[in-house]
Amino acid sequence: MVKILVVHGPNLNLLGTREPDVYGEVTIKQINQALKEKASKKNVQLNIVQSNHEGEIVDLIGKATDNYAGILINPAAYTHTSVAIRDALSASKIPAVEVHLSNIYAREEFRHTSVIAPVVKGQISGFGLQSYILGLEALIETLKSRQ
Amino acid sequence: MVKILVVHGPNLNLLGTREPDVYGEVTIKQINQALKEKASKKNVQLNIVQSNHEGEIVDLIGKATDNYAGILINPAAYTHTSVAIRDALSASKIPAVEVHLSNIYAREEFRHTSVIAPVVKGQISGFGLQSYILGLEALIETLKSRQ
Amino acid sequence: MVKILVVHGPNLNLLGTREPDVYGEVTIKQINQALKEKASKKNVQLNIVQSNHEGEIVDLIGKATDNYAGILINPAAYTHTSVAIRDALSASKIPAVEVHLSNIYAREEFRHTSVIAPVVKGQISGFGLQSYILGLEALIETLKSRQ
Amino acid sequence: MVKILVVHGPNLNLLGTREPDVYGEVTIKQINQALKEKASKKNVQLNIVQSNHEGEIVDLIGKATDNYAGILINPAAYTHTSVAIRDALSASKIPAVEVHLSNIYAREEFRHTSVIAPVVKGQISGFGLQSYILGLEALIETLKSRQ
Amino acid sequence: MVKILVVHGPNLNLLGTREPDVYGEVTIKQINQALKEKASKKNVQLNIVQSNHEGEIVDLIGKATDNYAGILINPAAYTHTSVAIRDALSASKIPAVEVHLSNIYAREEFRHTSVIAPVVKGQISGFGLQSYILGLEALIETLKSRQ
Amino acid sequence: MVKILVVHGPNLNLLGTREPDVYGEVTIKQINQALKEKASKKNVQLNIVQSNHEGEIVDLIGKATDNYAGILINPAAYTHTSVAIRDALSASKIPAVEVHLSNIYAREEFRHTSVIAPVVKGQISGFGLQSYILGLEALIETLKSRQ
Amino acid sequence: MVKILVVHGPNLNLLGTREPDVYGEVTIKQINQALKEKASKKNVQLNIVQSNHEGEIVDLIGKATDNYAGILINPAAYTHTSVAIRDALSASKIPAVEVHLSNIYAREEFRHTSVIAPVVKGQISGFGLQSYILGLEALIETLKSRQ
Amino acid sequence: MVKILVVHGPNLNLLGTREPDVYGEVTIKQINQALKEKASKKNVQLNIVQSNHEGEIVDLIGKATDNYAGILINPAAYTHTSVAIRDALSASKIPAVEVHLSNIYAREEFRHTSVIAPVVKGQISGFGLQSYILGLEALIETLKSRQ
Amino acid sequence: MVKILVVHGPNLNLLGTREPDVYGEVTIKQINQALKEKASKKNVQLNIVQSNHEGEIVDLIGKATDNYAGILINPAAYTHTSVAIRDALSASKIPAVEVHLSNIYAREEFRHTSVIAPVVKGQISGFGLQSYILGLEALIETLKSRQ
Amino acid sequence: MVKILVVHGPNLNLLGTREPDVYGEVTIKQINQALKEKASKKNVQLNIVQSNHEGEIVDLIGKATDNYAGILINPAAYTHTSVAIRDALSASKIPAVEVHLSNIYAREEFRHTSVIAPVVKGQISGFGLQSYILGLEALIETLKSRQ
Amino acid sequence: MVKILVVHGPNLNLLGTREPDVYGEVTIKQINQALKEKASKKNVQLNIVQSNHEGEIVDLIGKATDNYAGILINPAAYTHTSVAIRDALSASKIPAVEVHLSNIYAREEFRHTSVIAPVVKGQISGFGLQSYILGLEALIETLKSRQ
Amino acid sequence: MVKILVVHGPNLNLLGTREPDVYGEVTIKQINQALKEKASKKNVQLNIVQSNHEGEIVDLIGKATDNYAGILINPAAYTHTSVAIRDALSASKIPAVEVHLSNIYAREEFRHTSVIAPVVKGQISGFGLQSYILGLEALIETLKSRQ
Repeated sequence: MVKILVVHGPNLNLLGTREPDVYGEVTIKQINQALKEKASKKNVQLNIVQSNHEGEIVDLIGKATDNYAGILINPAAYTHTSVAIRDALSASKIPAVEVHLSNIYAREEFRHTSVIAPVVKGQISGFGLQSYILGLEALIETLKSRQ
Repeated sequence: MVKILVVHGPNLNLLGTREPDVYGEVTIKQINQALKEKASKKNVQLNIVQSNHEGEIVDLIGKATDNYAGILINPAAYTHTSVAIRDALSASKIPAVEVHLSNIYAREEFRHTSVIAPVVKGQISGFGLQSYILGLEALIETLKSRQ
Repeated sequence: MVKILVVHGPNLNLLGTREPDVYGEVTIKQINQALKEKASKKNVQLNIVQSNHEGEIVDLIGKATDNYAGILINPAAYTHTSVAIRDALSASKIPAVEVHLSNIYAREEFRHTSVIAPVVKGQISGFGLQSYILGLEALIETLKSRQ
Repeated sequence: MVKILVVHGPNLNLLGTREPDVYGEVTIKQINQALKEKASKKNVQLNIVQSNHEGEIVDLIGKATDNYAGILINPAAYTHTSVAIRDALSASKIPAVEVHLSNIYAREEFRHTSVIAPVVKGQISGFGLQSYILGLEALIETLKSRQ
Repeated sequence: MVKILVVHGPNLNLLGTREPDVYGEVTIKQINQALKEKASKKNVQLNIVQSNHEGEIVDLIGKATDNYAGILINPAAYTHTSVAIRDALSASKIPAVEVHLSNIYAREEFRHTSVIAPVVKGQISGFGLQSYILGLEALIETLKSRQ
Repeated sequence: MVKILVVHGPNLNLLGTREPDVYGEVTIKQINQALKEKASKKNVQLNIVQSNHEGEIVDLIGKATDNYAGILINPAAYTHTSVAIRDALSASKIPAVEVHLSNIYAREEFRHTSVIAPVVKGQISGFGLQSYILGLEALIETLKSRQ
Repeated sequence: MVKILVVHGPNLNLLGTREPDVYGEVTIKQINQALKEKASKKNVQLNIVQSNHEGEIVDLIGKATDNYAGILINPAAYTHTSVAIRDALSASKIPAVEVHLSNIYAREEFRHTSVIAPVVKGQISGFGLQSYILGLEALIETLKSRQ
Repeated sequence: MVKILVVHGPNLNLLGTREPDVYGEVTIKQINQALKEKASKKNVQLNIVQSNHEGEIVDLIGKATDNYAGILINPAAYTHTSVAIRDALSASKIPAVEVHLSNIYAREEFRHTSVIAPVVKGQISGFGLQSYILGLEALIETLKSRQ
Repeated sequence: MVKILVVHGPNLNLLGTREPDVYGEVTIKQINQALKEKASKKNVQLNIVQSNHEGEIVDLIGKATDNYAGILINPAAYTHTSVAIRDALSASKIPAVEVHLSNIYAREEFRHTSVIAPVVKGQISGFGLQSYILGLEALIETLKSRQ
Repeated sequence: MVKILVVHGPNLNLLGTREPDVYGEVTIKQINQALKEKASKKNVQLNIVQSNHEGEIVDLIGKATDNYAGILINPAAYTHTSVAIRDALSASKIPAVEVHLSNIYAREEFRHTSVIAPVVKGQISGFGLQSYILGLEALIETLKSRQ
Repeated sequence: MVKILVVHGPNLNLLGTREPDVYGEVTIKQINQALKEKASKKNVQLNIVQSNHEGEIVDLIGKATDNYAGILINPAAYTHTSVAIRDALSASKIPAVEVHLSNIYAREEFRHTSVIAPVVKGQISGFGLQSYILGLEALIETLKSRQ
Repeated sequence: MVKILVVHGPNLNLLGTREPDVYGEVTIKQINQALKEKASKKNVQLNIVQSNHEGEIVDLIGKATDNYAGILINPAAYTHTSVAIRDALSASKIPAVEVHLSNIYAREEFRHTSVIAPVVKGQISGFGLQSYILGLEALIETLKSRQ
């Protein structure tokens, strides 16, 4: 059975309470629940992790090549600053999809640049919980087309 | 029945023959076919237009508010230069979703900036034909959540 | 009798419905009506055109030298991007006045730069419908002082 | 009777003698005379001041709220450098209109940026003495529409 | 017989009357006449089009691959702004040569950047009517060396 | 009793030995001692943490909303790079005050920009140990004024 | 008895009435009263001046070395533009502290740069009236530590 | 007898005491004395003014055309910020020479740009008191060559 | 016996498998083995650590002053982003040498800037495993010359 | 008989062996041979020089005015850096044409800027050996039109 | 007897004939003559060299320390590009003065930056032949004050 | 026997006397001596050249391919400006190593960019004489690994 690593970046544990006008009122539990339902329909298995630590995320991705078929990642704040996560994704041999809850291009200037985007398969931003669901679909389609 | 306007920007008529290493080998016909199948499943109706003319696209969007529930647009080259299309989308009262076949953030520097993105609901890039299908799903979900 | 070409740029056909907090609630019909009244008082004749097409606006200006004494233009979105319209105005041998409904210097950074302004007689921005009326006066005064 | 403060910024006392190819041959006296005639027709009263001192201009604007209905200002060189005058205008509770004799966008690069423009009602540039007359009209119209 | 598409960009219809100190006194008719004479000597056939419309130029180039052996283009104002024309040239499978009447590097800063140049075979600027004649020669030589 | 979280960012554990010409000779123990004395006078309780780990600081702030009334933070090197800490502070519902031992505006160019400052109540820099004491006072005053 | 010069920069005379959402509702009188109370407790004497004139502020600081032990300054708009005030502070041999009512780093981009900050002891911004009180404390502590 | 206006800009009254490692130990009195001796030898008359007020300097220059043959100016801090003084010099019909005590190009980056330099005859920097003496010579030579 | 701390930054644990066209096929084990052999010849002792965590690297360097004579570091991705590691190295009292496997100046633009380089003794990049061996030699020579 | 100076800039002596994928396989001898044949047909005489020395090229151009009717130059690497060659061409009273073998606008960013181009008649780039032949034609035409 | 090295940079051999509207009609012979007369009055000996070769100028300055007391240099085009000449001047132990015939700050943007200026005693620009004479005086005064 | 070309760039002939606080007290003779000893141990032969002339260095590198196995170069000032030397190295078919005595990243901003680095095997900076010795080792290792 195909296994996918889902990574929630920093502060996403606070979803629902955190600036709901920007990020919506959905909680990380609800996102995870929706992802699992989708995964179950698509017959893939998910391992979902949330971390505020850049190093931990690098560790996870570094070990992913041998254990997963693909990575779904919302790098959150590290989207704009982490060359280490970029390099980890670039070094991994499995495809990754980048998702964002909010439309990062409609926010502060510094959020318009993703250092992650150039090394992933594609990026989805602005659809709240749906960004994750669509990202999972995109990743599964990507894996299918590589077979 | 919900009606959606689908806009293909400049040069997308050439898909399949145009730089297949960048844009893939899928043709615009195949994309339209796939979109229609998806639309039919989702019970929405599509009007699909391709144009190389910025002014025509502005015309289309200007008239969309009264005739459509939402807009799915791949602005192609105009992504990076057309304030007129941005203003048209911003003036329209219906949600829009921006899609790209290729991962624009993995290409030339000037393709990293979308003047369109700040005024749409969200953006999807990098998944080839799937970018459109996912964009259609995202748009339908957006319309549902507004009801 | 002196003839003046009035050009409304892209999306101005949507005035009144388009983001009224930015552009006000006046419609293009009302602007045209007010312009005609003013023109009639000043004994000049107006030809008023609205177009979303950069090329059409270039065509119009290209033919204006032989048919008009001056040009009143609100280039709207093309203010910030159209070197073609700039070159058309620069090539024409009649004076032009640039007007804007909103104060473009109080809006997004990219709206602070007009590629048109360096080749016109002068610019008026921020006074809604009045920008047009004042622009027409300015143009008529400019024509007078050239006689 | 409505009272309006007219402020001429630095070096405008030299008009007529100062670089006539840029600023025209009109003198400050002629501008003031023309403004007074217009004001008299429009039934408003003007207080006209010229100052080369940024601080004096800030003083004047600071006291204007209680004594005037609006401000007509040609900030001249301070257009490009004076955050203090910008803040004074922003703090005042009456509308202001910014005017320029020359088309500042057709001159040196550094004259293309006005730190004043974002906090005024609107801006008129390029029409010589007419810039002031049109500015006065614009201000009076603005005051009317606020009543 | 080899067929070549010649494209004159915006405002070039005005040549001869348009700012003769910048563009010279030659007219578009004279350029076309000279091009045809050269073509006739070189045994190639020309189709010459002038358009002020970015979209039309994109249309023309989009259809050129099947009908022409090469493209000679003076993109004029669109040189500096049109990613759509760049993408059309890049998508076409036939070589293109970019020409300019004036030396664009001796003019305003914004004219020093061509978004078209990176995707054409080569560029010739500054020689007036001769730029076209030399461009045609260059294109014919390029076609020969590809045989 | 009001509880305040005090966060010392990276390398502040080395204070006293670390470049004393920049940071002074005071140690982190002395700062903590002085803070506690001040807190005791002001009748507030402090929890003081030092961490070199961006992720740990994000963790701490993420949990602070429920346990503390405010945050006093010297983000040190993370001042200039950590969008993650910024987002954590922005997501928290309690006020924060940013302090710096040295005058960051009198040091290297890259230290002049704080990505943290836009989301805190205020910033104090340049007064050594006093920056902390004044920051604590400022935070307590802020909390009072919110009651 | 130690004497301190307090300088309020341009437009601060308008406090309370000026944009209360940005600067709060406190008046300059209230700030001065609070400063005097604090000074009296700390046994220092204040001379408080407000000026909208850059030159006057330079005059004041130029004469301060001989008459005061330190300077507390809110340069307001001159924070971002006045090299003359910076040079005056730099030339004076007594320490200065820079304060701001609002958090200048949470406002417009151009307010994020202080040309004054590199030459003062330290900077405090964002705490309204408290910025002054804390600044006075910081200055007094600075003077003590120099004895 | 030829009359020359000498203008010392802001903070130059403090010379000798002000940062002697940057500006040297010479006082403004000594400079004036040396200038007068030189002037007397060269048979010209000097009027020497020092002002910290931008507006006063603009006033002085504005009145200089009728009373002086030339201007010798050390704009000090206003070198880098005063468009008003630039415009005054540009409006005056007599030649000006700009001098600096220190080598402004060997100091902070922001001191490398003079907004004054483009409108004066020439600039001399780095020679302390000698900068003034050489500047006076240069001005006298300039006046001679214009006769 | 002299002790040296060797730090491998993020993702270097993946060496050999990670993008071998960029980083070569050598593994971290082979590098460590080669370093130990060199160290043994040079009679120094190595402690070698790899970490993906910025905070851990800061911790290590913070404690290094008391336990090691020098630091050999390949900061990898943190080269371009970590002010915290820079400050740690700057605070430590022992010399450090920075090494890179690949020639960072022949890669993406953002890899051309090292925030670490200004605070180390020197930098070696581009020689694969040899970069480490040469770096160790350089460090040992540096330590000798300081004795 | 008309004489023309042909200048080959640095490294062009290596043509044919030097990066043939960029510069083609043609040698400098072949270029010179082709130029001479063309010259002979056109009845002009060539003096062809290759130099790696900026100073030598400046010397040559400095002496060219008296001995030649025009200059054909491929400044190679000095295209992007040599103000001295620019000034020499600008000082010479004869027209110059700039040529490049490769399309410099399709290469590294720093090769997109020519400091030479603003002072020559025109520029031709991208056609290999043909760039020279076309450049010679352009120069001869330029000389004819000046007679 | 004090010996001074005078260096004329590239293209200065062409003076008089070279763009007289920019550089004046004076020839290098006349400048040298005037310099020698001045030197003879001041009792110093000059060695005057003109070179178009950056390397030759570096050679000359490299040997100057042992043979001259000071250097008078007009680096001409190398002013803006030559780090090598800067480093040579910086390495030499004798003072240098930089002169320019034209006011480089009133010319093209790229001429506003001197890479030489930060390492010389001072700079004089804009006074034609007088720039040299004043520069020689300045250098002699500098040498005197060092005795 | 393997032959290596060693190139010392401009001003390196002055080593030992030139700014010893930046470059150390070692002379070029000592460096050459140390290099020769190392070479002799490693059984390679060196040809060592110092030149202040960019053109000479280009000449040398241009001829190196046929005569040497590799190049060791300290481009000194030309590191930051010479595209010609870069192109020469890029055209040569033998590997090159770039070395610097000082840590160029700890010096002025303009020294942080090497136009040479992208085309060499690797770069070593900051270790004084050792930079050369390590560079020679690196080059020899590079040559070995290519065999």
